[in-house]
Amino acid sequence: MTRMNILTEADLRRIVPLDLEAIACIEKAFHALATQAVVMPPILRLDMPEQRAEVDVKTAYVPGLDGFAIKISPGFFDNPKLGLPSTNGLMVLFSTKTGVVQAVLLDNGYLTDVRTAAAGAVAARYLSRPDASIAAVFGAGMQARLQLEALSLVRPIREARIWARDMAKAEATAAALTVTLGFPVRAEADGKAAVDGADIIVTTTPSETPVLRAAWLQPGQHVTAMGSDAEHKNEIEPAVITGAGLYVADSLKQTRRLGELHHAIEAGLVTDGTTFPELGEIIAGRKTGRSGPEQITVADLTGTGIQDTAIATLAAARATAAGAGTTFES
Amino acid sequence: MTRMNILTEADLRRIVPLDLEAIACIEKAFHALATQAVVMPPILRLDMPEQRAEVDVKTAYVPGLDGFAIKISPGFFDNPKLGLPSTNGLMVLFSTKTGVVQAVLLDNGYLTDVRTAAAGAVAARYLSRPDASIAAVFGAGMQARLQLEALSLVRPIREARIWARDMAKAEATAAALTVTLGFPVRAEADGKAAVDGADIIVTTTPSETPVLRAAWLQPGQHVTAMGSDAEHKNEIEPAVITGAGLYVADSLKQTRRLGELHHAIEAGLVTDGTTFPELGEIIAGRKTGRSGPEQITVADLTGTGIQDTAIATLAAARATAAGAGTTFES
Repeated sequence: MTRMNILTEADLRRIVPLDLEAIACIEKAFHALATQAVVMPPILRLDMPEQRAEVDVKTAYVPGLDGFAIKISPGFFDNPKLGLPSTNGLMVLFSTKTGVVQAVLLDNGYLTDVRTAAAGAVAARYLSRPDASIAAVFGAGMQARLQLEALSLVRPIREARIWARDMAKAEATAAALTVTLGFPVRAEADGKAAVDGADIIVTTTPSETPVLRAAWLQPGQHVTAMGSDAEHKNEIEPAVITGAGLYVADSLKQTRRLGELHHAIEAGLVTDGTTFPELGEIIAGRKTGRSGPEQITVADLTGTGIQDTAIATLAAARATAAGAGTTFES
Repeated sequence: MTRMNILTEADLRRIVPLDLEAIACIEKAFHALATQAVVMPPILRLDMPEQRAEVDVKTAYVPGLDGFAIKISPGFFDNPKLGLPSTNGLMVLFSTKTGVVQAVLLDNGYLTDVRTAAAGAVAARYLSRPDASIAAVFGAGMQARLQLEALSLVRPIREARIWARDMAKAEATAAALTVTLGFPVRAEADGKAAVDGADIIVTTTPSETPVLRAAWLQPGQHVTAMGSDAEHKNEIEPAVITGAGLYVADSLKQTRRLGELHHAIEAGLVTDGTTFPELGEIIAGRKTGRSGPEQITVADLTGTGIQDTAIATLAAARATAAGAGTTFES
């Protein structure tokens, strides 16, 4: 008989907001990835082309943590036609001592949203200029909102621009964010204009062709590309990577295969074996971050299982502390 | 808001017994694997050597089925010292239309036990002689019991022998099975004697060195090897495979990497590219099964994601019909 805690999306939204503690939790996870004997197997990917759907399963074992999470993320791209979100899914937290289920986190993708936005904040904290105050976000979905929210927790953001293929959506998102964040956020129809004068540029689209051009970039800017988590996705022109002074991967093994780096390799601009620093190595001080205020930096985030284990562990601990969730025996 | 059904191990034991319908369900799954555009990605494997533990995640998408399952199977081999079973885990069933969670099956590995035993019955149904009446089982754990139970549903078994490294355990299992199955089951200390005169031999051990010798085999016998589901596991001498008249894989892609075939390839007895029939191809009539009463046949079962999707689909349908489980919204 196993006793576990089952948490709903509503429980999780209440106990795991996107805050500085969530960001610290993800920062610690990347630190562990660089410094500990973390086991992070390749992502399991189930493709259902007839359904325009894919499922990713991610996990990571971190020595010393009480639990490890397995996250199942379905992406069903025709769901919006049915009035449903494209992504949902859940996480399961297991004991590292016994493999017994500790918690089932029925988050419908919410914790992924949080840990992904938190990774953007961590990248900005270590790679953008400390005085970065203008942000440009490509994309107008949930993650675009959360990225800007996360950035404003770690940098003194006072202005932002939203570019999206759908200008009406960009405008709605900009208006909503202006209210919630308390600084002006404007929709921008022209990508180049959105980038002009920005300190931090975040791409959060599902694009399969670059939306960010290398020629638009200016000295001192930091780019976080987070939309590419699969082979066919591509948000930034490969020349952005070769033109940058510093390219950083969340997991080099993953970005070589799934991230923006993958497209630079495919384009023949980068050799497959080339080594780049990982975010965790910079956090841990094992590799050098931004060299100065003029350098252009790029973070390529594909999403890692260690972020899932970290956020699930945080969620379960907070649930216990708050007495949240439903105890279930099986 | 998603509405799902959460089923406990007790619910699942009640509604999904090991019966002819479960066997038919697994038979149909193998048939689909051979005849439909099934997508079955490589197993995700998380190794935690410090914990003497491993976790397998399996899945398969079958066109035409309403759902697909993702199964998480932790194996923690020091658990018995804590009074806990080595294996547990759960399955999650998702809609193939929307990716939304339909059911969480908190089975602690029970459904895996059933679908694994059912696969043994399917292999025996298609590969053993129809009049097979004597069974030898190597291993004395839960799966040894279930395999014998499953065999007796598809073949006129009237006698069985149990061999295990631990003779006391073999004797206890034999005594228990004699009562439940209603025919004599005896413990046998000598592997060769257990095999002598048997029609069907099933190996269900976690062994890493062969427990079944090629020289022991006699004309007409059928061997099902089901213990090897990981690179380091090995129950039958590689010469069993080369000496057999017919070798059949559950999934050739998997047995080449994880099954007994893997060890025959490693030993240089079989070339890696050699093609063998899969169980589903024989069920579907696309490849030839047993040629006659004298042929020695071998089934190499590593356990496939399609079995998990099939049994989870059966479980969810039965739960709906029986009104079993707890409705949960998230």
